[in-house]
Amino acid sequence: MKVDGVAYRTIWRRGASVEVIDQTALPHLFRTVSLTTADEAVRAIRTMIVRGAPLIGATGAYGLALAAQADASDAGLKAAARALAEARPTAVNLRWAVERALAAVLGHPAGERVDAAWAVAEAIADEDVEFCRAIGRHGSELIRKAYDDVRPVNVLTHCNAGWLATVDWGTALSPIYAAHEAGVPVHVWVDETRPRGQGAALTAWELKSHGVPHTVIADNAGGHLMQHGKVDLVIVGSDRTTAHGDVCNKIGTYLKALAAFDNDVPFYAALPVSTIDWTIARGADIPIEERSATEVTEVSGQTADGRLETVRVTPAGSPAANPAFDVTPARLVSGIITERGVAEASREGLLALYPEQKVPAQ
Amino acid sequence: MKVDGVAYRTIWRRGASVEVIDQTALPHLFRTVSLTTADEAVRAIRTMIVRGAPLIGATGAYGLALAAQADASDAGLKAAARALAEARPTAVNLRWAVERALAAVLGHPAGERVDAAWAVAEAIADEDVEFCRAIGRHGSELIRKAYDDVRPVNVLTHCNAGWLATVDWGTALSPIYAAHEAGVPVHVWVDETRPRGQGAALTAWELKSHGVPHTVIADNAGGHLMQHGKVDLVIVGSDRTTAHGDVCNKIGTYLKALAAFDNDVPFYAALPVSTIDWTIARGADIPIEERSATEVTEVSGQTADGRLETVRVTPAGSPAANPAFDVTPARLVSGIITERGVAEASREGLLALYPEQKVPAQ
Repeated sequence: MKVDGVAYRTIWRRGASVEVIDQTALPHLFRTVSLTTADEAVRAIRTMIVRGAPLIGATGAYGLALAAQADASDAGLKAAARALAEARPTAVNLRWAVERALAAVLGHPAGERVDAAWAVAEAIADEDVEFCRAIGRHGSELIRKAYDDVRPVNVLTHCNAGWLATVDWGTALSPIYAAHEAGVPVHVWVDETRPRGQGAALTAWELKSHGVPHTVIADNAGGHLMQHGKVDLVIVGSDRTTAHGDVCNKIGTYLKALAAFDNDVPFYAALPVSTIDWTIARGADIPIEERSATEVTEVSGQTADGRLETVRVTPAGSPAANPAFDVTPARLVSGIITERGVAEASREGLLALYPEQKVPAQ
Repeated sequence: MKVDGVAYRTIWRRGASVEVIDQTALPHLFRTVSLTTADEAVRAIRTMIVRGAPLIGATGAYGLALAAQADASDAGLKAAARALAEARPTAVNLRWAVERALAAVLGHPAGERVDAAWAVAEAIADEDVEFCRAIGRHGSELIRKAYDDVRPVNVLTHCNAGWLATVDWGTALSPIYAAHEAGVPVHVWVDETRPRGQGAALTAWELKSHGVPHTVIADNAGGHLMQHGKVDLVIVGSDRTTAHGDVCNKIGTYLKALAAFDNDVPFYAALPVSTIDWTIARGADIPIEERSATEVTEVSGQTADGRLETVRVTPAGSPAANPAFDVTPARLVSGIITERGVAEASREGLLALYPEQKVPAQ
């Protein structure tokens, strides 16, 4: 999508290095960072310079190309792949992309492995763009149907599942961009998404940059808005979705799903197939990352005179806990928007879209 | 309760002025502010130097004493009472306390009105303390019953309904203080309570000052903790409760009530009778204050080197909305803890505790 009129992806090759947008600096500063080694790719994933399940996956694949440049041996590639796959524990795309890239590269003789690694990384990135575009096409139909020809369709979203979370277009925001470009009036309620504030920082920045009407709200406000008819549908992304349709996503998603259910507001998760973990039936089996307490106790932003500062919002010495994701059970999910269409959030629904998959019964 | 070993109330008379703790400076700075006129009392309420429904009520009554010192005429007192009662729209205690004080003062001849105004303000403050102590006594029984003799009882609370929200003891936190003092091991999950962060700033500070184990969490985390059995009960305060048991409280309370209901976690609201609006049956009829967008877009806190700073967390130009309260329907409330005991959240339940009240059928 565009930043100041220039088309960007969130990640791209430049010669022997990989360029990414530094998402820790947004919304106050737009800058890119060069990654030159697999270790730097691991660090970029872990420190959330790149974040969002699909983008993490692409970064894993590009990271393997960087690894191949340094050491294209089986042992070297496998060690790098392990480090990349373990950089964050919750998103399944990361493991998926790294394993796919590793398998592709290991199939080549040593002399071809660097080229092969770049090729598979580019293929994974291109495929992500196409899948996200298709998610937008399917999801925008839901927005169009919700339009009453009078007032804009109000969509609530949580965290950032926009183009910054993917290579381009986004997952949850792709239907919004597609509807907006098709002329359907749409307004987005943006959950700020504490503790890291990806909604306030990234989703708001994306929508503002693209000209989509939006309003930032505290995470606490969504239920009240739904009680008062101010939300027509909820669309969120996912970091991992089980084969039975339980949706693991940024902490707090479950609360919005409960409120949507209580107020008859449709609740959708938008995600590419790579986010579905076909090996897991129950959401409770997904490992939930516990992140640093300082993400809760400290907030970073820009002062009135333009300095970037970090402030503590709790008393010195009060402990904090920071589970990063929660699981929304399938019973609260109206549908799962994928690149192939909109599935019912169930084993049967997902299998109808992906009949080639094997799914555990329980 | 105690601050650095010294017993404090949140509000008290000193000669011809009223002293309050400046709650906008906590948790980084403990300081008191003198109010010398009714206008200053209005401003203290509006800017949330004092906040919390019971404390706002007491401040309204003390404010009327300040008004009487300047102009004890019927017209002067009535104008001051109107300004005080309208300083914030949602809390019903404010109107209740100001009307009670006004009626008491108007019953006296001009020469006695100043003394009468101080007397009624002190009486309202003392009664609040006694009511809060009784809420603690009744509520701590619920905590004691939840104790399994092994692990501490985990109580989740939202916003600040501690002693800082009242004159002393608190409402939601009073049962926790009472259980703690009775030797029942208790641990409190403290919702940070964006946008103003009263949990992170005030509840954490209170509990830390008093030595009650606690952990601050993002507002998004509570549902996940309940899904994993880490919350034994939820206790919140209320800014206004309808005669049928709908609980209006800080924005986001409704989301926690939904999660508690979904996970069979008991959900209680603790409040003095002055918080109950016997004239309103339906929560939807309670006016909800919309506060400044900058409360969402900006966060204040302390830098690592001790400066107080305010930082913007959203892109410049992204709009924000800030509804300050929501309504939790009675069907999600396990019980209402008042100074008289624990009532079922219904017209019948509240009337059983308060048979002297008249309650609208619908």
